Amino acid sequence: MLPKLIVTDIDGVWTDGSMYYDQTGNELKRFHTYDSAGVLFARLCGIPVAILTGETTQIVARRAEKLQIPYVYQGVKNKVATLEPLLETLGITWADCAFMGDDINDALLLERVGFSACPANAPAYIQSRVHLVTQKKGGEGAFREFVETLLEQNQLLDSVVQQAIRLHEKST
Amino acid sequence: MLPKLIVTDIDGVWTDGSMYYDQTGNELKRFHTYDSAGVLFARLCGIPVAILTGETTQIVARRAEKLQIPYVYQGVKNKVATLEPLLETLGITWADCAFMGDDINDALLLERVGFSACPANAPAYIQSRVHLVTQKKGGEGAFREFVETLLEQNQLLDSVVQQAIRLHEKST
Amino acid sequence: MLPKLIVTDIDGVWTDGSMYYDQTGNELKRFHTYDSAGVLFARLCGIPVAILTGETTQIVARRAEKLQIPYVYQGVKNKVATLEPLLETLGITWADCAFMGDDINDALLLERVGFSACPANAPAYIQSRVHLVTQKKGGEGAFREFVETLLEQNQLLDSVVQQAIRLHEKST
Amino acid sequence: MLPKLIVTDIDGVWTDGSMYYDQTGNELKRFHTYDSAGVLFARLCGIPVAILTGETTQIVARRAEKLQIPYVYQGVKNKVATLEPLLETLGITWADCAFMGDDINDALLLERVGFSACPANAPAYIQSRVHLVTQKKGGEGAFREFVETLLEQNQLLDSVVQQAIRLHEKST
Repeated sequence: MLPKLIVTDIDGVWTDGSMYYDQTGNELKRFHTYDSAGVLFARLCGIPVAILTGETTQIVARRAEKLQIPYVYQGVKNKVATLEPLLETLGITWADCAFMGDDINDALLLERVGFSACPANAPAYIQSRVHLVTQKKGGEGAFREFVETLLEQNQLLDSVVQQAIRLHEKST
Repeated sequence: MLPKLIVTDIDGVWTDGSMYYDQTGNELKRFHTYDSAGVLFARLCGIPVAILTGETTQIVARRAEKLQIPYVYQGVKNKVATLEPLLETLGITWADCAFMGDDINDALLLERVGFSACPANAPAYIQSRVHLVTQKKGGEGAFREFVETLLEQNQLLDSVVQQAIRLHEKST
Repeated sequence: MLPKLIVTDIDGVWTDGSMYYDQTGNELKRFHTYDSAGVLFARLCGIPVAILTGETTQIVARRAEKLQIPYVYQGVKNKVATLEPLLETLGITWADCAFMGDDINDALLLERVGFSACPANAPAYIQSRVHLVTQKKGGEGAFREFVETLLEQNQLLDSVVQQAIRLHEKST
Repeated sequence: MLPKLIVTDIDGVWTDGSMYYDQTGNELKRFHTYDSAGVLFARLCGIPVAILTGETTQIVARRAEKLQIPYVYQGVKNKVATLEPLLETLGITWADCAFMGDDINDALLLERVGFSACPANAPAYIQSRVHLVTQKKGGEGAFREFVETLLEQNQLLDSVVQQAIRLHEKST
């Protein structure tokens, strides 16, 4: 069944878990362009994407804005409690949610949702709790693989890829 | 047949797809020094290189300037439509073009050109559309491998490598 | 036996050994989010973590502060001599210490402590001196694997992981 | 025979070939802490290290200063011609030099020196010209492996490693 909401952690999922620190207090994260198509594919199917992360950075705010992610929750301690009001607002249930996370603070939410996933390099005790372990590692397009798997399970992937390819065909 | 224009995408081809974001709105891309020889080899054969990318950054402008790339198109939605006027200007056809891309927004152009390529890590539905899947991934020298393959198919690689090696022999 | 102090080097252990230099004199290091759980697991068991590094950077100071590391020694030439006063203060012996290092300047301390470890990519002459060579490389979560191995040897890992998972269950 | 001068390229040897560009005109290179021991081992044997690079950056100047490299040549077109005066000054011959490079502009110098090396990921037409292809790739400690191989060929490695390990034993 197609989920009605796709939820994702950031560090270790959209990134390979790396956190770059410099001498001035600045910080960088490394995203992957492949995951942006995951967001696009979800949007073409009318499925909103929500970000849930324990960290709080301008980095994630800007990446979310660029990819037009409608729901962004940063500095989250309790991911289940944070998501609950959104489910109510959207009028959907836990079973309607798909979630990709990779670590300790994702574990309870991974057990709650209808479809759960983690990247190839997540700890063994996370991998054992999810429906899907992607072949890709975090930061290599694991989120896109997660979305593509969801669409493929619903025989939607081929048509969505075709739609995405032809998206700008009329542009000049 | 040797192409008369070599066209390339940037993210996922000249880079591994990584996009580094920091806390201040700055962004980085990681290029590979090996690809600069790909541009040099093309120039030694009199083949111009064109960049076509959907993103718009100073990063790509500066890299293109450093490598003396004559044609740079950023913020491109429709890669086929964008390239058409250049073909007219150069008096060449689609069959004269070689193009390396890696994703959805490259798909239509990949099908149009005379010779198409993508890096080893491109999605399966891109790999199935191209003449050449390089052994190297994006950002590891995949573009150079693409150019070298073109030259090798025309028995030009050995002499161009020799020419490049002796390029600065008379410098002091 | 559970150690009473966990000591760690930084470059090559918490990082993959990379040092990023820019044009302005700034520098970056790349940490991994997975290692932060290693520090958390140690804290949940009441074991303090100490950092001992030969370099001196704001980068490490900030990472240590973020992860609430109580003991941070930078610019260290002689790691054994630097650690000695802390052992006295804590009233513990070398046998009570576990240490993870990866290179030449870690070698003497690795031979002194009760349990020693290095990442998978350390030089052969370091690997031959330690009790544990982790499967992970430096900067990929090798430190977390080191801590998890210590806890597993004491049948503590499962319960600590459970405790960490439920840590924020009551938060809102 | 032990070389009297160890010469090294930077991009692709001390780095993995990556060049990080940002939006402001700044640039980064990624060095590896393991190579710093290569420089130390050479110094402990009384062998000076020289850097020869085609690029010109503050990045390399700073890295060289940190590692106390006595000879640094940047912006070099003709590596053979640039090195010649230094050989005269030092009163040594090409046969006394060992050089590690990885690409086109290193090829002529690689053929000139007494002992030549390149990293595992160098192009095939470079690998075929050198005495040693290291197991490590550029930026992963390939330069250190190069120096260690030189010392091992002269039965010096074990004693130099021991000397390096005990270097700061008397420090406090």
